[in-house]
Parts: sequence; structure tokens; C-alpha cells
Amino acid sequence: MSEHVYKVVELVGSSRSGIEDAVNNALNRAGETIRNMRWFEVVETRGYIENGQTAYWQVTVKIGFTVEDRVE
Amino acid sequence: MSEHVYKVVELVGSSRSGIEDAVNNALNRAGETIRNMRWFEVVETRGYIENGQTAYWQVTVKIGFTVEDRVE
Amino acid sequence: MSEHVYKVVELVGSSRSGIEDAVNNALNRAGETIRNMRWFEVVETRGYIENGQTAYWQVTVKIGFTVEDRVE
Amino acid sequence: MSEHVYKVVELVGSSRSGIEDAVNNALNRAGETIRNMRWFEVVETRGYIENGQTAYWQVTVKIGFTVEDRVE
Amino acid sequence: MSEHVYKVVELVGSSRSGIEDAVNNALNRAGETIRNMRWFEVVETRGYIENGQTAYWQVTVKIGFTVEDRVE
Amino acid sequence: MSEHVYKVVELVGSSRSGIEDAVNNALNRAGETIRNMRWFEVVETRGYIENGQTAYWQVTVKIGFTVEDRVE
Amino acid sequence: MSEHVYKVVELVGSSRSGIEDAVNNALNRAGETIRNMRWFEVVETRGYIENGQTAYWQVTVKIGFTVEDRVE
Amino acid sequence: MSEHVYKVVELVGSSRSGIEDAVNNALNRAGETIRNMRWFEVVETRGYIENGQTAYWQVTVKIGFTVEDRVE
Amino acid sequence: MSEHVYKVVELVGSSRSGIEDAVNNALNRAGETIRNMRWFEVVETRGYIENGQTAYWQVTVKIGFTVEDRVE
Amino acid sequence: MSEHVYKVVELVGSSRSGIEDAVNNALNRAGETIRNMRWFEVVETRGYIENGQTAYWQVTVKIGFTVEDRVE
Amino acid sequence: MSEHVYKVVELVGSSRSGIEDAVNNALNRAGETIRNMRWFEVVETRGYIENGQTAYWQVTVKIGFTVEDRVE
Amino acid sequence: MSEHVYKVVELVGSSRSGIEDAVNNALNRAGETIRNMRWFEVVETRGYIENGQTAYWQVTVKIGFTVEDRVE
Repeated sequence: MSEHVYKVVELVGSSRSGIEDAVNNALNRAGETIRNMRWFEVVETRGYIENGQTAYWQVTVKIGFTVEDRVE
Repeated sequence: MSEHVYKVVELVGSSRSGIEDAVNNALNRAGETIRNMRWFEVVETRGYIENGQTAYWQVTVKIGFTVEDRVE
Repeated sequence: MSEHVYKVVELVGSSRSGIEDAVNNALNRAGETIRNMRWFEVVETRGYIENGQTAYWQVTVKIGFTVEDRVE
Repeated sequence: MSEHVYKVVELVGSSRSGIEDAVNNALNRAGETIRNMRWFEVVETRGYIENGQTAYWQVTVKIGFTVEDRVE
Repeated sequence: MSEHVYKVVELVGSSRSGIEDAVNNALNRAGETIRNMRWFEVVETRGYIENGQTAYWQVTVKIGFTVEDRVE
Repeated sequence: MSEHVYKVVELVGSSRSGIEDAVNNALNRAGETIRNMRWFEVVETRGYIENGQTAYWQVTVKIGFTVEDRVE
Repeated sequence: MSEHVYKVVELVGSSRSGIEDAVNNALNRAGETIRNMRWFEVVETRGYIENGQTAYWQVTVKIGFTVEDRVE
Repeated sequence: MSEHVYKVVELVGSSRSGIEDAVNNALNRAGETIRNMRWFEVVETRGYIENGQTAYWQVTVKIGFTVEDRVE
Repeated sequence: MSEHVYKVVELVGSSRSGIEDAVNNALNRAGETIRNMRWFEVVETRGYIENGQTAYWQVTVKIGFTVEDRVE
Repeated sequence: MSEHVYKVVELVGSSRSGIEDAVNNALNRAGETIRNMRWFEVVETRGYIENGQTAYWQVTVKIGFTVEDRVE
Repeated sequence: MSEHVYKVVELVGSSRSGIEDAVNNALNRAGETIRNMRWFEVVETRGYIENGQTAYWQVTVKIGFTVEDRVE
Repeated sequence: MSEHVYKVVELVGSSRSGIEDAVNNALNRAGETIRNMRWFEVVETRGYIENGQTAYWQVTVKIGFTVEDRVE
């Protein structure tokens, strides 16, 4: 850890199975284009209901990563 | 999705096994009398401790549902 | 105004035209079954997007009314 | 305390004498129709002023109770 | 709605005429480069004053959209 | 914009017609005695209900203005 | 209640005896120069400790009053 | 008041009689082992209900005290 | 439940497997020196990322326990 | 410290050099007309950017002072 | 200032020397790829500790800039 | 970083010179009895005013450290 600059992006991952899986889905998707992800923070946990049951967990995460080349 | 009106109620579900199960218990109980539940939001996650262990997870959720006949 | 007790309920009104109209839709729907509504507070303003345009304004309001006969 | 489900309702009690009395007025009114109230949380303390003096204390409480038969 | 991942971006739209128009201006600008926008949430409403009058409404919105190819 | 000091005051404007008009009413009233108002921020949107309809929109704004002569 | 404009000021009342008395002290002091006070909201409750005991209750209130002549 | 360092601890005091008494109970208990308590802040006011009545007021306070010898 | 005084401490538990396990790790560690733990509240859920995957869940909990002998 | 009443005003100080200087500028300006200022609290730290650099730090503070003669 | 649309991004700047320098590091890094940055807001101030001393100040800022060509 | 448990304590550091110095004073004092401090978060920045000038900066920090032997 040095005088790095990090960027923080906000994503919503969804999953039929639970909160951790929804977070992991968001991380997997983000990892396709972001290198050097360092931490995340859960900022909201919601869900979509179908037929009286949880159909999808929807978890909003902020993800911090080291800025390598550009900040947009 | 049209010009519906939704009502939001707040419940606390509890479970010995975990957060998702506590939410599902709240939804199941709510579903006995509420039709057309659409979404939920987790607003608080607490727990009751016995003998140094988590005895119950207690998760407060707000549940939104389409208003069909009456709002009280 | 005397030593009344008020109840507060949370509703989400939606409208294609705007924020005020979404609130009024919620009040109209609530007024079918609640007498003596006294005040409201806007707690969240969201919207649903279709084809890049605002399809529905969705405004969450808390409505306070004088309790006459029962609190449930 | 077991795998109960609780419902949370929001009331505003008012009183000429003080905060505790305003809360008790809300509980008394709620107790006419709600059985098995378990806890409350004060979420807002306001007051109405007449002639430069506190005319009414208005205290908003969330009340949690065990759900027995129905959630509306 | 399936196991999608959504990204959330924050924009400030401004307008001389009002809140809804400021939001629409933000959505229109965002729609030039973002496909599949799904929802927005108003997070702040401010304004710039000139000669004692509202010169511009400035409304901060978070916009959620389905991630198709990349998350940056 | 230089090394100015600004003061922030809090007002509640009311209007029968809507949110923007309530804000403008607050600004107009403030402008009778405050020079150099620069910005405002909406901090609360409430309303007063009569006969089941919105009688008044009540919008709380914080108004910032350049301090010219005195801060009280 | 009409299309009035209200101003909100923030005061801290203190008292050796308790919370309500601290609020009343703030209102009494404010009433010496403010006419038409309408409502207050408790925003913070603190205290100063001497010799392990509460020496002063210090209660921060926001007080709203009808603007008659000037807003400063 | 000089370049002191203070520590802040969080306690919940309970009382059958009211809010001020619950705070005082917390201070009395804390004072048995903490010297030099300086201030407190009320951060939450809750209660436990038995037979439809307030059985206990439960008030969470943060207490600040001058650090003399050790911070743990 | 009587006129007890409770203390609240804040811990961060971490786990490779998930949120509930991170909380349990915090409770287990706390239980080595704290007797009579009664409840916890989750106040923050974060995680540490390695190679694009969740390496550790880090969950901040507040734990309340009955004060037996000393408050520091 | 006795049964004083304090008033709290909100100011924004700006400075080219940094946060502390912006606060001091606000205090200096306030001190021209307010006697007996006692404490301040930083409530927001923002800045204005020119040519990619911080042009001004803008720090919002609440300042508490003992009320001597009038509260307006 | 006209009917512009602004985008807001969140960055974390770090510095061994202090808060202002951490913010400036974030701005400098952002300015390599973002034109027309207009304002920032400090949303979190943290630090990393080594050997009992502050090793790095880590300041999270939201940066607003005029949208010229695309919003992603 | 492994499956550690961290404890978080809250301190207020004060300084005549500025915010960073107040934080460092808190860390220095904490470091006399706490080993393995890892991070801090600034949660409140206040000050004490004498003769219209900042006499002391008072900065509240939460400090996280690895739990080695006991949690109290």
C-alpha cells in the first residue's frame, strides 16, 4: 500500500441463491474489465419477490480498485 | 408495471440458521395474508445471543406490495 | 390538535407525469379506506426507465392520520 | 424467544406533559387492538408551540409485536 | 429480470424549469452512450440562484442500467 | 468566487400548487431582506392534507448567501 | 395554515433537571424575540457530567416560526 | 480543557421510570470504574413492553472521559 | 430483564466463507473474555478482494452484554 | 457552564490554502458580529476546482454561541 | 453555468502528509483523463496505521465534471 | 490479512494546530496500550473557540486493531 489512487464503482449483483452469491456475481462481472480490485462494501440489500417467495437477491456493492491508466 | 400504488410494511423475521432464512420466514408469514408482494429491502440485521453463540438472526425487512383493495 | 394518537403508513405512488401527481395518486388510493389523513412526508423519489425515458415516477410517502378506532 | 415473526408499526403519541407520557399514550392506544407488543423505538421527538410554550409533545415510535394471525 | 448485473452511475441534471425536467435532461444525456437504463433514484435536489430567483434546478440522480459488455 | 464567507439559513416555503412553487415562495420571501443569495438545497418535502387531498406542499430549503456585513 | 413561509432556527437549551425542561428553557429564551413560534424538533440530546453525575442536560432543538417581517 | 485525549464508550442504561433515570443508571454504573467522565450523548431510545405498558426504558448513551492511564 | 446496564463493543469479524461465519468468528473471539453477551447488530459489511474473488468477508458488529463488574 | 441557552448558526468558509484556514475564515467573519462563540462542528467539506486543481476549499461549519440578548 | 449535465465519480486519494494532499493526489490522477472537473466533496476520511503512526491518509472524494461527450 | 478479529475503539484527540495533529495525538495516546493498530476513520470534527479563535481542534476517530488476547 503506497500513495495509490483508487476508484470506486457501484454495482448491483443479483442471485437466486443468496447475498454472498449476488456479491460474487457482481465481482465476477466487474473482473472481466477491471484489474486490481481491492475491496468492496455492501451498501444495500434488496430482493425481488415472485409468488410470495424470494426470486432474486439484489445486492448493491461499492468496489474499490487501484487506478492504473485512466479514470473516467 | 403501471400507475399502481404500493404499500410498504415492516416485519422482523427470525431464524436459527442465517440471514436469508430469516428473510424468507418473514416473507412466508406475510404471504399468508398479503397478495402481490413485489420487493423487499433489508433495513436492519441483528441477532440474539445465548451461551456466547448466535441463537437467532433477526432481520428487519420492508416489503412492498400492490394495493388491491384497501390501505389501512 | 389535542392529545391525539396518529398512525403513519408508508405508500409508493406512481405516475407517468411527475412527482406531485405520484404523491396525489398515493393519497387518493389511501383516502378510499383511511379517514382523517393529516400530513405526508416524501421519503424517496425514484423512477422506472423505458427506452431511455422516464416511464414512471415512483414516490414513497409516509402518511399520518388520526387514529379513530383501531391500530393494526 | 423463538422463530417468531414480528411486525413493526409507526405511531405518533402526543401529550401535554412530556416525552414519556406521549409514548405511553401511543402504547395505550395501540394496545386496544394489538396483542403481544414487545418493544418500541423512539424515532422522532417534536412539539407543537402555542403562545411561546410547548402545547404538545409529539413523539414518533416504532412498535414491534409478535404476529399471531395476520399481517396487513 | 434474471441474474443480471447492473451498474449505477451518478449524474447531475440541470434545468431552468423544474425538478422533473432536470432529471429528464440527465437521462437524455446518459442515454446517448448507455443502453438498457432501468431505474433512477433522486439523491439530492439543489438550485442555483440569480437575482433572488431560481436560475437552475440541479438534481443529482443515480441511474441503474444492465451491464452488457464492460464495467469501468 | 473568491475567499468569501457564506451564511446558510433554513426556511420552509408552502404552496398549494407544487414543490417548485413552494421553493420559489421561500426564495421570494427571503429575498426581501437577504441580498446575494447564491444557492439552495431541498432538505425535506412534506405536505398538509385536507379532505384527503394535498392542501399545501411544505418544502424545507437551506439557502446560502454571501455575507456582506453581519452574521447573526 | 396558508401559503406562509417559516424560518427554522437551531438552539441548545440546558437544564439541571431534565430533557423537557431544557427544551422549555430554549423556547422561553427564543420567545423573548421571536413571535409566532409554531413547532420544534429535538435533533440532539447531550449532557455535561460533573463528579460522575449529570450536571446539565443539553438539548438541541430546531424551532419553526412564521416569518412576519424579515428573514436574516 | 487542554490537549487531552478522550475515550468514548457506549452503554445502555435501563429504568422503569423514564429516560433521564435510565441515563443516570448508566452513568452511575460507569462511574464505578471510570474517572473523569465529561459528557454523554443519547444515541438511541428504546423500550421493552410488558402487558401493553412500558416495562423498561432502554437508553443508549455514548460517554466521553479523559484518558488518564490507558486506552483499551 | 431488569434495571441492568449493558455495554456495547464494536468488533470486526472476518471469514473466507460468508457473512454469518464472520459474525460468529467475532462472537467466538469476544466470548473468550466477555460473559453474558446478549445481542449484536451488524453495522457494516465489507470484503477484501484477491485475484478478482472475495478473499475475506469483513463484518462489523456491535455486541451488547450485561455489565457485571466493570466498565472501561 | 450554567443553564445557558446557545444558538447555532451555519456558515461556509472558503480558503485557497486548506480546511483549517477555511474554518478560521468563517470564524473570523462571524466574530465581527457574534460575541461569545463557544464551539463549532464541521458538517461538510467541499471544494471548487479550476484547471484541474483545488481552487477553493469550502467548509461548512455550525457555530454555537451563548445567547446574550436576542435570538432571531 | 447553463443547462449542463454533470457526472460524479468517486475516488480515494492517499498521502503520507495529510488530508488536503490526499485530495490533491486524487484530483491530479483524475485530471489525466477527465476534462472540466468542477467541484469535489469529501465523503470519508480514513487512514492506514503502521507502527502506531499514520502511514497513509486515505480520503474518499466525489468529483463532479461537465459531461462533454459520453457518460459511461 | 487472514481470519483475524479486530476491535474498534472510539477516541477524541485534540490539538491547537489542526486536524491531522489531533488525530496523531489520539493515535499516540492509544498506542501506549494498544498493539497492532491497523486503521482509523474520522467520524467527527469539532473545535473549541476562545476569544473568537479556534482554541482546540477535537477530532473523533474510530481505531481498528487486531485482537491478540482479550476483548473487553
